[in-house]
Formats: sequence, structure tokens, C-alpha cells
Amino acid sequence: MIKSLRIALVGGTGHQGPGLALRWALAGHEVFIGSRRAEKAERVAGELSEALRPIGVQYEFGHGVNPDVVAKADVIVFTIPFGGVRATCEGLRDQIRPGAVVVSPVVPMRKADFGLIADLPEEGSAAELIAALLPQAKVVGAFHTVSAGLLKDIPKPIEGDVVVCGDDEEAKRLVMGLVEDIPNLRPLDGGPLAYSRVLEALTPLLITMGKRLGNPNLGIKFI
Amino acid sequence: MIKSLRIALVGGTGHQGPGLALRWALAGHEVFIGSRRAEKAERVAGELSEALRPIGVQYEFGHGVNPDVVAKADVIVFTIPFGGVRATCEGLRDQIRPGAVVVSPVVPMRKADFGLIADLPEEGSAAELIAALLPQAKVVGAFHTVSAGLLKDIPKPIEGDVVVCGDDEEAKRLVMGLVEDIPNLRPLDGGPLAYSRVLEALTPLLITMGKRLGNPNLGIKFI
Repeated sequence: MIKSLRIALVGGTGHQGPGLALRWALAGHEVFIGSRRAEKAERVAGELSEALRPIGVQYEFGHGVNPDVVAKADVIVFTIPFGGVRATCEGLRDQIRPGAVVVSPVVPMRKADFGLIADLPEEGSAAELIAALLPQAKVVGAFHTVSAGLLKDIPKPIEGDVVVCGDDEEAKRLVMGLVEDIPNLRPLDGGPLAYSRVLEALTPLLITMGKRLGNPNLGIKFI
Repeated sequence: MIKSLRIALVGGTGHQGPGLALRWALAGHEVFIGSRRAEKAERVAGELSEALRPIGVQYEFGHGVNPDVVAKADVIVFTIPFGGVRATCEGLRDQIRPGAVVVSPVVPMRKADFGLIADLPEEGSAAELIAALLPQAKVVGAFHTVSAGLLKDIPKPIEGDVVVCGDDEEAKRLVMGLVEDIPNLRPLDGGPLAYSRVLEALTPLLITMGKRLGNPNLGIKFI
């Protein structure tokens, strides 16, 4: 980690938000839990502070409604389901400052007759859709293949790789640094943002294969 | 390996064919090198026998034009570029017997402005297209993420996973056994054939990331 960043988790009360919040708090960043409802953000922020106490860490998470936490942040992470992407982008358009780094771990999925599969939007991927809706932001795709359960299991290291892709090199490097802040996770430069479609497509395979293998936290490593 | 299989490599003189041929010869299978030209098949079959001599193995590869080698095989592997899929299926339609196992490691790719990316057909994947063109065959997708270079580097083991997908369970198990025949490769059940689109999409990312990392043989492991 180079310096402490202000990180806002939009929809941070959901599936992947809490684990990322805990990890980045432990790495010394200033983490804000965002939600559509202020009370929910406050409640989850409190629970997360509680979760850090048993390992001897005193930490107060920031919290608030999504537009409020976003306005303060260097890095904004969209820990939301794909279904909420358009409305979230609309709702935050004026709060996201030019040059802000927006991280998309979003995976659009649908249940086909043969099983769970990616349902990529016309733009190519959820990350590219976000980039189209928020032209002022530097969008980076990352964290698609990291289990929310493992992220929450602090302070255990997580074995696995995180492919990071984006069209702005500086923003990509920043997010690769945020991957390195999580013990044992390795960031890999996945190239331009368009490669996010590959990572988004991979997640439903990880979920279905993980079920078959009895491993709900199946991850990936490049060797 | 349960028993010795007769394996025909359609386009076996190309990129991925020789490595697979060597590996399965070492595992005790009866391997046939197929090509559009009989002389080329014969030449490559001879070269592959030569390649086995330094490690003390005497082995004669079968060889012939694609329709001839296919007619004799239990398992047919399409080691061909995507551009050849339609013509190859047309040309072999009458030689491929009902119930034959056809393995597709085929990856449809195109060079987009941002880089190499999958160019999946309307059917969903190359494997599904092959299944549509050869309804009498049991099509299995596999070997998309294994480097041709590592396959040829006998007798070295290959670290990595091979996700195998297919709609016929018996055929899928057979191909998973063929993965296990290659030292250290681990087969993983990837579910129905439709998941081949995920694996086909993964290969261009492996190629471009491998270039960036200085590893032309980048592979994958699920953890």
C-alpha cells in the first residue's frame, strides 16, 4: 500500500461489500459503507467494527447513503447486483467526480436451462456498461473471482489471483495495489477494460463447478 | 487409464495435435494423426515417433487423411482452427459413426481493436456448433487452457487444470480420463457443453496475459 485511500462501497451492505470493507480497513484505508438506506449502512458499519474487535482492531467505518459516501471517495466500488447498475449510475452521476476510480466486480448472470451463465450486456460487460454510463469515471474491473465468504474470513489470507482490467493505467495500478493489500491475493494485469467480459463470464462457472466440487469458495490461479 | 483407446487427431499435424498425440502415445493409447493431406500426416507421424525415441519409447503412430483416421476411432479430437470447423464437419459427417466421442479444444478468436478476444458463434461456442453440425456425435469440450508447447515437452508433467464439459456423462468421463493420462493435469467436471463458451473465452485472456507476464504457456488452476 502506498497511502491510505478513501474507499466507498456502494451497496456495501450486500454480498461482497462487507468482506472487502474488512480487508481494506485492516490495510489502513478509510472505508465508507454505502447503502440506499442510511440506517442500514449505519447498522452494517457497526457490525463490521464489531467483527474487527476480536482480532484486537479498533476501527470506525464511515457510512451513509450511496450518494454521500461516493462524494468523499478516491475509489468507489460497486458491490451491487447487475440489476441495480443502471439505476445506481443514474443516481450517482452528479456525485462521482471527474477522474474518480470506479471498481466493478459486478457479474451479470442468468439461469439458463442448462445452468447459471453470464448474461453480458450489449456493451460487452457490466464494467463497460458502467463506463458508458459514467464517462467521467475511470472504470476498472476486478474481484470477480474472489469468494465473498473468504473475504469476510479475517484475518486469514486468501490464496488466489485477481485479474484487473481497465483502460486507464494509473487507475488499474491503484486497484492492483488494493488487491495486494489483501494478504496473499495476487493482482494480474488483465489488459483493457473489455477483458472484463471474460472475468464476468468466469464467475458462473466458478459457482457451478464449486457446487459440484463441494467448494463454495472456488477461486482461480494462473500458473 | 481404463483401457487403450483409438484416438484420431483431426488436423493432428497442427498446433495442439502433436503434443496431445505424444502424451496419449505415452499413456498407451493407439493414436492416429489425421490431415487433409496423407503425406503430411505420414511425415508428422514419423517425426512424432522420432521424438519419442530419445526417451526410450518405440511407438508407431497411425496416420492418414482425416476421413480415414476418423472412421477407425473411439475418440476424435478436433485440433483445428475455428475457421476450419464447418468444412471439417461437412467433410467427416459420413465417417463419424453414431455415438463417437468428438473432443473440441477449438477456440474462436478475433483481433479486436483492444486485443485478442473470443469470437463465439451464434450457437454459443465452437463446441456447440460442432454438436449442431454432427448430431450423431457425443461432443465434449476440453483442453482449451493447456499450452501446446507444454504438451509437446515430454515427458515433463504439466501443472494445471482442464475443465471438461459435455452433455453426455459417459463421454465426459472418458475425456476426463484422457486428461488424467497426462501427468499432473487434473480434469474438472465443467458441466453441460454450453459451458464451453466460458473456456473458449478464457483462452485469449490467457494468451494476452501470458504475453504481458512473459509466460507463453500460462495455464489455470482452480483452488
